Amino acid sequence: MSTTVDVLDLNGNLTNGTTDKSNFVENQSRLTTKYELNNAVQPLLTDLYQLSMAYAYWKNQKNDIAVFDLFFRRNPFQGEYTIFAGLDDCIKYIQDFKFTHSDIEYLKSTMPSYVEEEFFTYLENMNLKELKIYAHKEGSLVFPRIPIMRLEGPLPIVQLLETTLLVLINYASLVTTNASRFRLAAGDNKSLLEFGLRRAQGPDGGLSASKYCYMGGFDGTSNVLAGKLYGIPIKGTHAHSFVSSFNDLSDLKIRHIKSAISGESVDLADLAFDYLNQMEKHELYFNTNESNKGELAAFVGYAIAFPTDFLALVDTYNVLKSGIPNFCAVALALNKLGYKARGIRLDSGDLAYLSLKVREFFKKIGKIFQVDYFEHLTIVASNDINEDILHSLNMQGHSIDSFGIGTHLVTCQKQPALGCVFKLVEVNGRPCVKLSEDVQKATFPGKKNAYRLYDKEGIPLVDLLTKSDEPEPKVGEAFLCRHPFIETKRAYLSPSKVENLLVPVWIDGKIIQENVEPIQNIRDRVKFQLNHLRTDHKRMLNPTPYKITVSRTLYDFIHNLWLDYTPIANMN
Amino acid sequence: MSTTVDVLDLNGNLTNGTTDKSNFVENQSRLTTKYELNNAVQPLLTDLYQLSMAYAYWKNQKNDIAVFDLFFRRNPFQGEYTIFAGLDDCIKYIQDFKFTHSDIEYLKSTMPSYVEEEFFTYLENMNLKELKIYAHKEGSLVFPRIPIMRLEGPLPIVQLLETTLLVLINYASLVTTNASRFRLAAGDNKSLLEFGLRRAQGPDGGLSASKYCYMGGFDGTSNVLAGKLYGIPIKGTHAHSFVSSFNDLSDLKIRHIKSAISGESVDLADLAFDYLNQMEKHELYFNTNESNKGELAAFVGYAIAFPTDFLALVDTYNVLKSGIPNFCAVALALNKLGYKARGIRLDSGDLAYLSLKVREFFKKIGKIFQVDYFEHLTIVASNDINEDILHSLNMQGHSIDSFGIGTHLVTCQKQPALGCVFKLVEVNGRPCVKLSEDVQKATFPGKKNAYRLYDKEGIPLVDLLTKSDEPEPKVGEAFLCRHPFIETKRAYLSPSKVENLLVPVWIDGKIIQENVEPIQNIRDRVKFQLNHLRTDHKRMLNPTPYKITVSRTLYDFIHNLWLDYTPIANMN
Repeated sequence: MSTTVDVLDLNGNLTNGTTDKSNFVENQSRLTTKYELNNAVQPLLTDLYQLSMAYAYWKNQKNDIAVFDLFFRRNPFQGEYTIFAGLDDCIKYIQDFKFTHSDIEYLKSTMPSYVEEEFFTYLENMNLKELKIYAHKEGSLVFPRIPIMRLEGPLPIVQLLETTLLVLINYASLVTTNASRFRLAAGDNKSLLEFGLRRAQGPDGGLSASKYCYMGGFDGTSNVLAGKLYGIPIKGTHAHSFVSSFNDLSDLKIRHIKSAISGESVDLADLAFDYLNQMEKHELYFNTNESNKGELAAFVGYAIAFPTDFLALVDTYNVLKSGIPNFCAVALALNKLGYKARGIRLDSGDLAYLSLKVREFFKKIGKIFQVDYFEHLTIVASNDINEDILHSLNMQGHSIDSFGIGTHLVTCQKQPALGCVFKLVEVNGRPCVKLSEDVQKATFPGKKNAYRLYDKEGIPLVDLLTKSDEPEPKVGEAFLCRHPFIETKRAYLSPSKVENLLVPVWIDGKIIQENVEPIQNIRDRVKFQLNHLRTDHKRMLNPTPYKITVSRTLYDFIHNLWLDYTPIANMN
Repeated sequence: MSTTVDVLDLNGNLTNGTTDKSNFVENQSRLTTKYELNNAVQPLLTDLYQLSMAYAYWKNQKNDIAVFDLFFRRNPFQGEYTIFAGLDDCIKYIQDFKFTHSDIEYLKSTMPSYVEEEFFTYLENMNLKELKIYAHKEGSLVFPRIPIMRLEGPLPIVQLLETTLLVLINYASLVTTNASRFRLAAGDNKSLLEFGLRRAQGPDGGLSASKYCYMGGFDGTSNVLAGKLYGIPIKGTHAHSFVSSFNDLSDLKIRHIKSAISGESVDLADLAFDYLNQMEKHELYFNTNESNKGELAAFVGYAIAFPTDFLALVDTYNVLKSGIPNFCAVALALNKLGYKARGIRLDSGDLAYLSLKVREFFKKIGKIFQVDYFEHLTIVASNDINEDILHSLNMQGHSIDSFGIGTHLVTCQKQPALGCVFKLVEVNGRPCVKLSEDVQKATFPGKKNAYRLYDKEGIPLVDLLTKSDEPEPKVGEAFLCRHPFIETKRAYLSPSKVENLLVPVWIDGKIIQENVEPIQNIRDRVKFQLNHLRTDHKRMLNPTPYKITVSRTLYDFIHNLWLDYTPIANMN
């Protein structure tokens, strides 16, 4: 890669992202004010039924205080964890929530003519001063059925927020989780770059993907606008078209570059061609007649533009017979003039095999020409990589340093939607039940608190739901944690640490500022929490489910309610 | 459903979208000026490598005239056709293409410090006056390897457009094609509603989905903002939470409604309850003690708000024991007061079975209470429906009038990305080759024209690529059409109509206005073209591939070039 924030780092090591930190942080603070890009996030970005219901509530003078839980029922990707993301976008939406005059005009034109004028005045004056939002911290691990967010406030108002919050949380959490799984598969010492813009669900899908993949553990993105808006490191060199736009060395209008050692101007094309001929004499199994001279010209042209950031795409014609010899010829020429090349990118073929062959080639060149760093040149791979392929590459053995990943990452091909739902659990203190014939799909009624209990190593043991009016579990005191469905599964746990998971985010019209965090903090939280999750919950194949439990009081409360509402079997 | 543009249509028929046409068209013209919502579409919404290449081209004084083709290699969803969408967005992007001062500042801060100042001046002054774009009409059928778009202009400039054009076309075409497949599966006489906002890739993913699903043949969306921006009919009534927010009839603060017949105020709750008791006496297999009174209250409340648009979600507790009896009681009460109910929505359970049972119930009620239209009440179904389920429902038999479809539609779960690519095919008149060891993946080099040849019924026979300097095929004259890869496959065709597929869109800095079309026109084109495509190309299982062919001259040209560039086998 090249032309990135860490571009002045001359060690040629793509995996080291720390060198650009100062630059990155500066970018971020400078750009935070430009955060608000997507003006699609507004009260009308919702399903019509929310407004129909708002009218029906208003018409029926039903302004009860409601509690809604936002949660999901199953972890994505056959995994056993999910990362919560999108909170910052939710806060922004809540802060700016206001029906505009033009919104009201549109609604008047489209809702039935008998909808009363006063309702539109009610919408126009609507504010979120009576709303309370509690949520997990962004970047936290979250698990099925534990509310990610709890909202309290007037029924019609909270109802109106449903769709937009789901839009902002569902994809953000899904793709952050996906990125974190790619990170687990690749290991900590590889560089992961998100290249998915062109395959995303439209422009903003691409921006969200870049932002949340970075949050989930990627090192950078190809998406320049995401770099500008979110301060994410951006990466990218050249495409096949750059190579095929050159026919031979005569296409080069500029051939000279200033030596970093002597300061004199040197013909890089001649020098590279000379190295190519020297290389041919060694047992490197290529032939200068067969290597493509248009490709050599392209590499020389690129190196003239980016002498300290020379990373070439080597598979336009033939990796080992043309791309790699041409790259090495230019890299040796650069070396002679005091510039270190960065490495190469493979975009087709058998990535494991080719990467090993390329590394072997680099080692030979390093030895023949006595250039030590050659064997450590970066190898980037980027052809249709997914989580399974990363695992498979690890098993085969490879020599890839950096992966550029697009389609499978941003579309979450393995599971393209996270099923977050938004359920009414209480109205004016009365628990609400939406029953399903399948009790596993039923909602836990009533207002609840959520805790995470930790052992003395700081490893999470279980998540625990309690009724909101129960005393909270205490450090060092045994607490009965029950399986929510299976009566016989329960255990007394004496936690070393208790974390209240649902922290206030928005109370009575005001944002609780400590929840507004730089993306880097959230990214660090993802990493920290994943590092402290038991390995068996994270493994790819048949991971152990993390336990979610309920208190004795909550267990009795919900099971009694469910019994009261048990559906009548249909016998006809 | 209710609160839509066709809300004043009292025939209760959801599937009839024509009644709202006048309203719809008015909306559209009024709102076209607000089209430009997504300010993410800008020159920086691109991959960094485009800018790296731009610098390398600039630095090397390489301002050659290039030709790029935008195409895909395989139809999505194991189908044999694709619909091209996104052109309008591309035109908008091209029209507004301009690096801002802030973009330049960002690039300066992030590109290597040795990048020359003059390059940024060059970017800042860049315009698209030397650019030519040719494209299929939006909403056209397109097929593999036939360029959807051909761009000609200075190499660095055209290269810079690649990613953004791919972003705007890939997802738009994918989801339009997906929607059209759902339409084919459901048949023309069903109503299809897009309910996918909450599962989309973020806010704009949701907006794009709504717009392009409508283009692909859906009748409406739940997405209010899409309604406002694109003039698409919006649909939606209420959620389970509306039902569970009512505990019993005493929760109703408002019980009265004005009779449309007598003008007097009547207690709708009493009247509905009375009908419920009357209904129980007939053989309808339910019991007023078991039906849920909170649900009845919710339905009464909803009917008071929307008396002419009463469509109720009936599966909160039990469809046949509670939801349907409660709905019928309220619908009969409304009927007595001169209001026609619309129907019900099913959101769980066995949709085929339940829809038939519900229809039976409606018929019985219609007979018992002598209300003819009851048997024709609308049944909407909406639980996790995909293309395969639509086919399966057709085979089982069902009585659903309208489908609300979300996740599978907008995420294109069957194939979440269309692989459009953007390939350099010519530089300064010289054909460019990017070879792959797999010849099927190779690009057709050179500047080409594309035609569609039709038979006398107006059915497309083949698509044909020619060299751009060849004479075009003529009506009534035999033209040799060759398979691009298999030497022995060829046929002389004498077309009744020849369509030049790549029409000018942007020539020398000016948009060709006739390509800017209202969404309704494009939607009509999709429908027309699909109606005129042979059935065997459209069937779900093993559809016949539509033939794409090349002229004799082009065949010889590309095969000779490929031979020249044949990769060297790697024998070590």
